[in-house]
Amino acid sequence: MVIVMHPTGSAADIVAVVEAAEAAGCEAHVSRGDSRTIIGLAGQVDQLEAAALRHLRGVADVVRISVPYRLVSRDHHVQRTTVRVDGVPIGPGTVTLIAGPCAVETPEQTLRAARMAKAAGAALLRGGAYKPRTSPYAFQGLGEAGLRILAEVRAETGLPVVTEVVDAADVELVAEYADMLQVGTRNAQNFALLQAVGGIGKPVMLKRGMSATIEEWLMAAEYIAQRGNLDIVLCERGIRTFETATRNTLDISAVPVAQRLSHLPVIVDPSHSGGRRDLVLPLARAAIAVGADGLIVDVHPRPEQALCDGSQALVDGDLRELARVMTVLPPLGGRTRAHPPAPVTLSGAAHARLVVGAAAASA
Amino acid sequence: MVIVMHPTGSAADIVAVVEAAEAAGCEAHVSRGDSRTIIGLAGQVDQLEAAALRHLRGVADVVRISVPYRLVSRDHHVQRTTVRVDGVPIGPGTVTLIAGPCAVETPEQTLRAARMAKAAGAALLRGGAYKPRTSPYAFQGLGEAGLRILAEVRAETGLPVVTEVVDAADVELVAEYADMLQVGTRNAQNFALLQAVGGIGKPVMLKRGMSATIEEWLMAAEYIAQRGNLDIVLCERGIRTFETATRNTLDISAVPVAQRLSHLPVIVDPSHSGGRRDLVLPLARAAIAVGADGLIVDVHPRPEQALCDGSQALVDGDLRELARVMTVLPPLGGRTRAHPPAPVTLSGAAHARLVVGAAAASA
Amino acid sequence: MVIVMHPTGSAADIVAVVEAAEAAGCEAHVSRGDSRTIIGLAGQVDQLEAAALRHLRGVADVVRISVPYRLVSRDHHVQRTTVRVDGVPIGPGTVTLIAGPCAVETPEQTLRAARMAKAAGAALLRGGAYKPRTSPYAFQGLGEAGLRILAEVRAETGLPVVTEVVDAADVELVAEYADMLQVGTRNAQNFALLQAVGGIGKPVMLKRGMSATIEEWLMAAEYIAQRGNLDIVLCERGIRTFETATRNTLDISAVPVAQRLSHLPVIVDPSHSGGRRDLVLPLARAAIAVGADGLIVDVHPRPEQALCDGSQALVDGDLRELARVMTVLPPLGGRTRAHPPAPVTLSGAAHARLVVGAAAASA
Amino acid sequence: MVIVMHPTGSAADIVAVVEAAEAAGCEAHVSRGDSRTIIGLAGQVDQLEAAALRHLRGVADVVRISVPYRLVSRDHHVQRTTVRVDGVPIGPGTVTLIAGPCAVETPEQTLRAARMAKAAGAALLRGGAYKPRTSPYAFQGLGEAGLRILAEVRAETGLPVVTEVVDAADVELVAEYADMLQVGTRNAQNFALLQAVGGIGKPVMLKRGMSATIEEWLMAAEYIAQRGNLDIVLCERGIRTFETATRNTLDISAVPVAQRLSHLPVIVDPSHSGGRRDLVLPLARAAIAVGADGLIVDVHPRPEQALCDGSQALVDGDLRELARVMTVLPPLGGRTRAHPPAPVTLSGAAHARLVVGAAAASA
Repeated sequence: MVIVMHPTGSAADIVAVVEAAEAAGCEAHVSRGDSRTIIGLAGQVDQLEAAALRHLRGVADVVRISVPYRLVSRDHHVQRTTVRVDGVPIGPGTVTLIAGPCAVETPEQTLRAARMAKAAGAALLRGGAYKPRTSPYAFQGLGEAGLRILAEVRAETGLPVVTEVVDAADVELVAEYADMLQVGTRNAQNFALLQAVGGIGKPVMLKRGMSATIEEWLMAAEYIAQRGNLDIVLCERGIRTFETATRNTLDISAVPVAQRLSHLPVIVDPSHSGGRRDLVLPLARAAIAVGADGLIVDVHPRPEQALCDGSQALVDGDLRELARVMTVLPPLGGRTRAHPPAPVTLSGAAHARLVVGAAAASA
Repeated sequence: MVIVMHPTGSAADIVAVVEAAEAAGCEAHVSRGDSRTIIGLAGQVDQLEAAALRHLRGVADVVRISVPYRLVSRDHHVQRTTVRVDGVPIGPGTVTLIAGPCAVETPEQTLRAARMAKAAGAALLRGGAYKPRTSPYAFQGLGEAGLRILAEVRAETGLPVVTEVVDAADVELVAEYADMLQVGTRNAQNFALLQAVGGIGKPVMLKRGMSATIEEWLMAAEYIAQRGNLDIVLCERGIRTFETATRNTLDISAVPVAQRLSHLPVIVDPSHSGGRRDLVLPLARAAIAVGADGLIVDVHPRPEQALCDGSQALVDGDLRELARVMTVLPPLGGRTRAHPPAPVTLSGAAHARLVVGAAAASA
Repeated sequence: MVIVMHPTGSAADIVAVVEAAEAAGCEAHVSRGDSRTIIGLAGQVDQLEAAALRHLRGVADVVRISVPYRLVSRDHHVQRTTVRVDGVPIGPGTVTLIAGPCAVETPEQTLRAARMAKAAGAALLRGGAYKPRTSPYAFQGLGEAGLRILAEVRAETGLPVVTEVVDAADVELVAEYADMLQVGTRNAQNFALLQAVGGIGKPVMLKRGMSATIEEWLMAAEYIAQRGNLDIVLCERGIRTFETATRNTLDISAVPVAQRLSHLPVIVDPSHSGGRRDLVLPLARAAIAVGADGLIVDVHPRPEQALCDGSQALVDGDLRELARVMTVLPPLGGRTRAHPPAPVTLSGAAHARLVVGAAAASA
Repeated sequence: MVIVMHPTGSAADIVAVVEAAEAAGCEAHVSRGDSRTIIGLAGQVDQLEAAALRHLRGVADVVRISVPYRLVSRDHHVQRTTVRVDGVPIGPGTVTLIAGPCAVETPEQTLRAARMAKAAGAALLRGGAYKPRTSPYAFQGLGEAGLRILAEVRAETGLPVVTEVVDAADVELVAEYADMLQVGTRNAQNFALLQAVGGIGKPVMLKRGMSATIEEWLMAAEYIAQRGNLDIVLCERGIRTFETATRNTLDISAVPVAQRLSHLPVIVDPSHSGGRRDLVLPLARAAIAVGADGLIVDVHPRPEQALCDGSQALVDGDLRELARVMTVLPPLGGRTRAHPPAPVTLSGAAHARLVVGAAAASA
């Protein structure tokens, strides 16, 4: 931390600042210049509330120097981390595609979307059972029924499941069904939720808050890490700016910046960034090219009937191009596409449940 | 809702859109112009997912027209609402000052801050027992112990208590102690929390999300209203912009805009907007002058020792000026300052608890 | 300037940074801490391109400390400045209303608007002859013909004229007619224009760029000051944010912040900030209450026929309320309303020109 | 244009709006719904000032439908345009690299930078002789001397020259030396300058204003086009947001969006977007992958001595990687790298001038 004294600050003011810093357990180093004196603090500076120093007479500014996060920082953990979701890697050396419907609606829609996802090269299935919606009148998700559908589709397709949790009280339930928990952009500073997912022992995908700085995003990850869970994947999904042509502004630079500051993997959501289907493929290409460790993409068998965000879901025609992109681009950066876990044999009972569920839903 | 067709859209495309709209229960009115055809929809347009219409061939744009909130809208509830907190009005005709410490730290600090608040003209006491902090290493509040301190200080000073709740699971507990629940900026789209406070039967102060549009803010209020609670006070507390000279940018225009769109009262937090003590009084004056129904302000007996946001807390010298502002400005707009409830007699037992608590804390 | 070394930086790296700083004429003070070393620079630090230092091995960050503007800074010019426009003061102790039509359209419209302005308490007349418009198809102003109208209306009403200049090549011409030159938000970093108005010897009103930080705004003023002109009035007119309910977001906090950083007067434009007539009066009240040294407001005799920004122009009914605000609010801050210059006797010839011009325009 | 009536608007209000619209030469189509009436306007809607309609009684909102630009719109010019700079194409089918020093400092520095540019695959040379700088105390460029250096380096290397012009008064002079004129982000709404470059008969590169919406960017291009010049290349260079980790936020989505709305080519500046050397290559890869028609990149032989923006200039080591990217990525989208014009023979006199200049500068 650096304390900048005002040009009119007196020698006594400087002494007072030094004493306050030392009382707080810091070493203070005074640098006197022609027009300004600055005081550098070293040691246990995190203990000090910078705000308190600002109050001392003669202080013009207090500048924080060291980063406020530790466990997720790359400073002391230079090697980048690979997070594994049921064996599927997300991290350096691979590009991992997560795809599926924005919201789980029916067993049949989810299964079809999962097959589309797999055809496009996905290694993990996304799908929301709990949907945070701006309007209380919009579809809010199927809840546990949606989780059951996801589990059945996992059994059928072999794709591990990534799904959102929106309330600390639901974390245990969601973790019973999901292979990876997602914390969404609106909950990026819901600290109770962050702590709850930090304690549940499953990998977490943490979306960036729509107005979170990169530093705040990493601080949110630190909340999860502090509870003992370092299996965190960061997901850039667009930030809020003045531009209205796109739903959000994909901050593509955030990918290399976050990868430099943190050892955690960083993926990109090209569907929610733009909110427009015609932007998904260009942004997916840009994300892989910039070095993202993966993508999370909406697909839907009949987007015009989607209960949520249909306007951004990829359809069949786009999937072949996405599959091509997933095949061709990663090798240019010396990487490979991540693959789903080795196929599992579906038990007869599970298959029966799935079929029954699909029949019930279409009834 | 208005659907704008692309110049190259065909007559068949227009027919398809009209059919889709009518299938969804809307009336469609086609207006053909020289270069564009537009289709106006009326009726149950909320049922339609605008997104789905965007997919139809020939559609260039879909523009939503009617506001997406109902219960909090002024369209059908022209009279502005007065919310009463233990008898203290917040609404048209009055200006209500809510003041107190950002965080409850000790009984003694809270009591002193409450007395400062009262001297400045406050009718309600603010103070946080649960603090959402960007860093997991920052002070997170005293929890239920903090709530008890607030209740004791209420008993001593007669000021009803406004305090934040950060997790749906805590709503019942906080509501036992508080007279008004506060939902903070980071939880402005924590829908589980909004629904929980909507069902608990106490007035709610809803801070604007730091990147929420005014419409999203009103939608968040709609979540609370939908659970049967219309005792909602909106609080503008600064939005996130590119400017870094202030912690947030107080959107002073949001006060008259929100008052026009909604019947709910709107107050201003000049402390968190700027994050600087020297801005609190100027912004407080601006807020009253623009027509805000109240203010919520941080005060602290010793800000340089504050565990949270000390740099913005008003100190003794500022309070006389705040008291003057609260006396002089409201009458210019034909309003009066709101007063605390009539004094209560403190029971001997409550007084003893308070004294014991203060002694324990200072030990 | 402060250089923060990376935790992995070596002693040799530190020596190299110190040598580079000293070679550039700075003193370097090294502070070694547990985890970080920081190097404070004093002396001719402005000569150093901070960027170059960032390149040195082991450097993690370079933090600028001293403000980059000098002539407009309050650091060495503690007393706030009063700028006089043909005798009318803008500065501490007064509140100055500037009003008039957004664009000069006809002599008759301009004269009527000026009379409205005067009735509302204006001491200066605004009106644009050169209009920077987002669309090349929008009305671009009358040019020199508009300047002549303004001069004639000044002769008739006694109100000195404030008018915008949009190109360095026009500065001399505009200065022949105007009493104060305005530089608009779109030209806030048109440095050729800033330098030209700095050299012309007339007071300048400098609007804040719509995405300029307060520091950049002051740097733009420094460009003018550097040419020898310190008669600069800063005008806050709203910044660009994500909120779309208002055309811009009035940054009301920028008024006290800029007044603290600079000795120059700061006024507010409540008309362009919100872009809505219903917000002008509330924002005008807020601006005076926050401590602004004046207001600039659009008025128009028939806004529904305005060629520019009619939707924000005040009409007759609003003017009485504005006059009341200008009378009642300034005394609360110990200030008075600024008055127009003492009336001048209009020569017969000037009067004839005005009448002829009005007749020609309405023909 | 669509006019939305307030729920309380009367039938007479609707009639008045229709009459106003028809008086302005529009056709009005009224759609009455359950809760709202909307009026669609067709015909010469550009003639109408939307603002004026907002004033009519009962009007709740006015929504513009058709795009406000014509010449640069893709609506009536579906084929994307290729702009040629001295024969070098910028447009569909190619990826064009423009590289060179941010500022021209000496003949030797410029020549070395140009050779670095060429080695990296550049077809055009960039370099600034007029530099718009936030601070009046920063290096402002060499002016005409810089233009002469650029011309000499063109003669030596065969690379056509792209250079910035910052004042309408300089356009003729700059056009004598340059092959393509650049309008920078700070002048993106300097309409006098836009009109001047529109009339000079040379290709123009128009950077996006740092707070310009995509629509405003296209309107700025329309100003140039309106003067008869359609040889315009749009350049995305980052927008201003709340994020401070990067100098600007590269709006990568703006590339496909602008290519859809306009037939003009769109390139990306990865150097100024991030303001950090370590981001240039990742962002360059992303830009090509998203479909940009080219890149403009800073290179400098000794960035640590650069007088401007040294911290973002690529150095030798990076150039090989850039060359690889320019070779490998375009073919994935079915494109090729654009090449410089066929080599020219340098006259002895020109060569002598260059050598003399270099000697003088290094003296």
